[in-house]
Formats: sequence, C-alpha cells, structure tokens
Amino acid sequence: MGIITLTTDLGHKDFYQAALKGSIISLYPTVRLVDISHDIAPFNIQQAAFVLKNAYRYFPKDTVHLIGIDSVFNKDTRYLAVKYKGHYFVGADNGIFSLLFDDDEPEKAVELNIMQDLRFLHFPLTDIFAKAATHLAKGGTMGDIGDPIESLVKRMVIQPIIDGDTLRGSVIYIDSFQNVVTNINKELFNSIQKNRDFELFFRRNESIKQLSWHYNEVPEGEKLCLFGISNYLEIAINKGNASGLLGLQVGDIIRIEFKS
Amino acid sequence: MGIITLTTDLGHKDFYQAALKGSIISLYPTVRLVDISHDIAPFNIQQAAFVLKNAYRYFPKDTVHLIGIDSVFNKDTRYLAVKYKGHYFVGADNGIFSLLFDDDEPEKAVELNIMQDLRFLHFPLTDIFAKAATHLAKGGTMGDIGDPIESLVKRMVIQPIIDGDTLRGSVIYIDSFQNVVTNINKELFNSIQKNRDFELFFRRNESIKQLSWHYNEVPEGEKLCLFGISNYLEIAINKGNASGLLGLQVGDIIRIEFKS
Amino acid sequence: MGIITLTTDLGHKDFYQAALKGSIISLYPTVRLVDISHDIAPFNIQQAAFVLKNAYRYFPKDTVHLIGIDSVFNKDTRYLAVKYKGHYFVGADNGIFSLLFDDDEPEKAVELNIMQDLRFLHFPLTDIFAKAATHLAKGGTMGDIGDPIESLVKRMVIQPIIDGDTLRGSVIYIDSFQNVVTNINKELFNSIQKNRDFELFFRRNESIKQLSWHYNEVPEGEKLCLFGISNYLEIAINKGNASGLLGLQVGDIIRIEFKS
Repeated sequence: MGIITLTTDLGHKDFYQAALKGSIISLYPTVRLVDISHDIAPFNIQQAAFVLKNAYRYFPKDTVHLIGIDSVFNKDTRYLAVKYKGHYFVGADNGIFSLLFDDDEPEKAVELNIMQDLRFLHFPLTDIFAKAATHLAKGGTMGDIGDPIESLVKRMVIQPIIDGDTLRGSVIYIDSFQNVVTNINKELFNSIQKNRDFELFFRRNESIKQLSWHYNEVPEGEKLCLFGISNYLEIAINKGNASGLLGLQVGDIIRIEFKS
Repeated sequence: MGIITLTTDLGHKDFYQAALKGSIISLYPTVRLVDISHDIAPFNIQQAAFVLKNAYRYFPKDTVHLIGIDSVFNKDTRYLAVKYKGHYFVGADNGIFSLLFDDDEPEKAVELNIMQDLRFLHFPLTDIFAKAATHLAKGGTMGDIGDPIESLVKRMVIQPIIDGDTLRGSVIYIDSFQNVVTNINKELFNSIQKNRDFELFFRRNESIKQLSWHYNEVPEGEKLCLFGISNYLEIAINKGNASGLLGLQVGDIIRIEFKS
Repeated sequence: MGIITLTTDLGHKDFYQAALKGSIISLYPTVRLVDISHDIAPFNIQQAAFVLKNAYRYFPKDTVHLIGIDSVFNKDTRYLAVKYKGHYFVGADNGIFSLLFDDDEPEKAVELNIMQDLRFLHFPLTDIFAKAATHLAKGGTMGDIGDPIESLVKRMVIQPIIDGDTLRGSVIYIDSFQNVVTNINKELFNSIQKNRDFELFFRRNESIKQLSWHYNEVPEGEKLCLFGISNYLEIAINKGNASGLLGLQVGDIIRIEFKS
C-alpha cells in the first residue's frame, strides 16, 4: 500500500484540503494518506521545509511527500518530483527543495510534463500534484511523469556564524509548546564545544550555562536549553511558554560563548 | 472500499468527533473516512453547504457525505439520506440540502426510519447518521433505511441581482487565506459580461477593472479579482489578507458595472 | 486490522504528530489510525482523561489508545500498557490512568520493558509508545512487552459533595460549543433527586429549575441544563455561548438544592 503525506498551508476550515484528498483517492482508492501539517503559515516555505524535513525520516522509504505551498502557476514556475534519501517529494520549485535537503544533491529530479498547458491551471494540488504523487505511490517511475532537470532553485538561509570561541545563531521556529528552536544543530555545536563549558546568551541579560537532556531536568518554570527531537538547539522553559516569557521570536539572534 | 466524508461543526478539541469515527468504524471496520472539515462555525449551515458543495465533486461516485450540523432532535426534525449526482448525503433536513443542491431536485430522498423513538436520542451523529452512512457505504439501498419523501426543506439565500448593466452580489465566504468569495458564479458573470469591460466596486471607493486567472498576476500586495477553484468571483490580494486590508466581511455588498 | 487511537497535546502545527504517525506506520503499515484529539492543553492530563474517557467506548474492543501527554522521561517515570474493559491504553504513569478509570482497577497493567536505557530517550511517543501500541494492535500479548505491576499512580480529583438535600459540584470542562460540563454524573444526580424538584444555582443569582433532554427544548438564547453525551450534568445555552455569557469556567462551583 502506497503512502502519500501532505504538507500544506491550506488550513482545516476550507474545502481545499478535502478537494486534494478527494482527487488523490479518486486516482488511488487504497492509498494511505497522512497529514504532516496543513497549518503552515501561508506561503511560508521555510516553515514548511522545517516541519517536513523533521517529519519525513519517520516514514518508510518510497513514501511520497506532497508539498502544497506557494505553488500558484506563473510563467517561471516549474513543478517537480524529486527523489532524496529514498523518499519522493512533489511540489513547486520555489526553493523549498534546497531548504529540505540543506543544499544536498537529490538522487533524481524531474520537471513534471503530465499537463500540456499549465496557463489555465487553477489548483495545481488537485490537477497535477495529485496525479504525480499517486503515480509514484503506485510504484510508477519518475521518467514516466517528467523530464530530468539538472539543478533546483536555491533559497538562501541564514547560517550560524563561527567567530573564534563565539557561535552566533538565530531563532528559526517556535513550536506549539512555545519552545524556541534555533538554527544550530548538534553536530555544529559539538564540533566547536569539544566538551568545554559554555554560556548561551539571548535578549539583554538572559543566559543559560547548562545543556539539558530532558525538559524536566530543571524545576518547573525554569529556563533550559537542549537538543530536542529536531536535532537543533532549543531554548525552553520546563512546562512553560519560553517564547512568550523570554520574548524570543523567529529571527532573533542568540550567541554562545565557549570558555577558552 | 466504501468512503464516508465528514462535515461538522464539532471542532478538534472535544471527544465528539472521535465518538462519531469510533461509531462508524465499529459498524464498518474497513471504511475509508475523510474529514471535509470539522471547523464549520457552530450551527452555520450556509458555511457547511458552501464547503461541502465545493468538496464533494472531487470524490468518487457513491461516496457518502455525512453532515453533522444543526441536527439536535426536536419534534419537527427529519433525518434524511439523499442521493444527488451519484453521491449520497446524510443529515438533518434543516435546509442544508437545498443549499447544497442550489434548489436542484435530488435523484432520491428518504426519511430515515432505522430508529423507533428519536425523543431520547442524544447524539444523532453516532446513533443514527453513523448507521445510515455505513449502510450506504457498504452498498446498501436507501429503501432499506428510509421512507421516500417528496420535498426537502428550502432555505432562502440572497441571490445576485441583475439590473441592466449592473450586477449586485454579496460576500458569502472568507477563506483561511482571507480571500473574499462572492455569490456571483462564472456562468452568471459571463452571461452578462459578453466580453465587455467592467468595473467591480466595493467599500467606498475601491474598484477592480481586470479579471485575473491566477493570484500572482498582479504584484504582491495588490488587489485582484478572479474565479477561483470554487467557481465563484473572489476578491483577493496577491499573498495578502484581502478581507482584513479591504475591510470585506460576509454579507457585504459588491457591485459590477459593465460598459455599454 | 488493528486500530490505534491518539490522544496528545502535540497540536497540528509541528512535525511531532507526523513523527508519531510515521513511526507507527513504519512498524505496522496497515494499521488504522484515528485521532481522538491533539488539541489537549499542554500537560493537562485531566482534560486528556476527560476526552479519552468519553471517546474510547465508541471504539471496538481491543482498540489500542495511545496517550501522549506529560510523558517526558525522568528517573521516576514508568511507561505502561494497561488493559481496561477490553481496551488497551499506553502512556506514562502520571496519574492519567486513575482519572481514566475513575480509580477502578484495570484488568491488567505492565511496565514497558522494551527499552534498556530510557535516560537518553528524547521522544517516548515515537521510541517506545509506538512500539508498544503496534505490538498490541497486532494482537501481541502484554507479557511480551512489560512486567506486571500492582498499582497505578493515583491522581486526586475534586468529587461532588452531598450535604443533606444539597449537592455541590464543580465545572470540569468547557467544550468547543462553550457548553459547561460539571463533575456530577447522571447516576449520582438520580440517586439524590428521586424525582424531586430541584434548583441548580451558579454564579451570583443564576439558577435553572428544569432538566432538559435536548439543547433546543428552550428558546434560542435561553439557558438550560441537561445530561449530554458525556453523561455529566451540563449547563448550556440553546445555540449560545454558555461559558462566556454565564461567566462559568473550569473550577467554578455549582450547587443543586433538592426540595424536601
């Protein structure tokens, strides 16, 4: 049984998500559909990439991940199917693939050629993504639905900056528990820390000197930092609203000083 | 495998939606369940009708659409199963069927007779709609679960008004992108426009003179109008909040002047 | 086909829920997954217990109910699988089981022993609950995944107080229609009422003297009380916002005087 996951900004109120599911089921009645999220902020491909990048690894190989965000047609739009690490991704080439793969090269990428004329396309999710995703979920080849392409649109993201014993990063995501996720991953942190003491600074005078393993290693209401299930450094408050109480939002800068 | 879709105002927080799904699965363990929406505003049958009317066409024929809105029992309540354009609909006869079908006649309609005494019924969705929907989804006949009826409860809706070269309509829906959907459909618009220029007026001094095909045909932040996937005239802002920025709400009047 | 239901505070925006579903599907590709709710308030095990207690009965026997709330590891944490009334429950022993079963004894309870070292566990839902739940949903035994335990952590809840002809209760839940649910169940009410007249008092001077069967037995906008589908006494307003208009919140006290 093929699996198709859905990551969109379509929300839960309108008929758009149902139209997408109905289209897919009409083409492949026994497919397994799984919602990754339909609550991506409108047109926010960074957020979509963060959510899907962290979610897709939990699914079996050959799962098809349909990405329905910022995909309205214009003359420069390319609609793609991409294979990466054994998974398939279908979406618009608006930069989301480079964010998803951290600029890593995909195994294969094709531009969908299953519609003759895209100019009058109203809803690419039902009209073209559903067709491509069900074809792949049934075990069809990428060559049947598209022409190979060489490169994907790149989208720049702010990378952490290493400056001697200082590491500067930024907040990239606030989760629904109000945990604050930064762009510093565990491998980067470890490569600089080398078991040294450190101090993580943010806002004016706030700092944290300890890396926790679990949210509940500090008393309730206390701040902490840890590498969460996203593998990125998080600032959190045990059972509390870190974003609100610490005043941290997406884009805010944080700084780590490692003791020399 | 039978398909049952769900359109309700039950939300996602309570156990009501799960009770409905558990009831259906208990009666038909392999049924495919698809949520159309559970975020219909409480008791808002116009909104439920708009969402389901636009969604059901994407599903295969013989799909059963369960409508759980404004269905509390009282002595005048009739619970129906209705066949229309090859799809089945199960719900309370509160006017939603006439809204769904635009006053078109259904292929067949029956009043459910599978419960003897409805007076002590607490939750019609689990107690009677689930039974009727699973019966139909398994391929059972309407005659097995109800008695034929002649007519459905009518619910009046405000229709557009044609006055010479002027067409007056109103806002019927704001979607989660804050696009503003009116009650003017493409067929009506085309029948009056006959390729003439036009100007769409709303609020005090706002107007739009161009019909777009895609949201991104104007610069980001600019207003536009188009026939969206709902087939109704929409007022939108490219990547922006049209309802908020243009001050348009459900019930507001818009006016189109066609050049003579 | 096994069934696993999910009750969590993970929300719909993040990748956490998808990670859980992907983990389960990877272990059991044909399992049926049903969301009870992911909108439980963070760490609110009373709310999770109320929702799941009312939902699980609608599912077939042998359904596995995965509870993902307040389950971060610490040295005192036990992760359990529990059988009660023919259903399986998997979660952390944080008191939720005693709330779910109203302090009734389970048929069987085991502490999960399928992971050697829990100290470095980041996300128990994917790492241990998914394994236990899929094992049980496939028909595996509890003995294969855990060691029997004698007792569950108890969590105290405020019980109604009977004082002669007076019954004092409190508000335990506000549903998404803003109906106000109290901790007085129908059996308790009936055992004291014995068909006598009564008056239900709340806030300063509000009272209700009639027990309704349906929300629409009073005019629209009027207050009423009834035993709803949760089997607990509810205060509601026909098609209105009872919590907001009557100023009732979780924890508020209500009083019923039975005529002598």
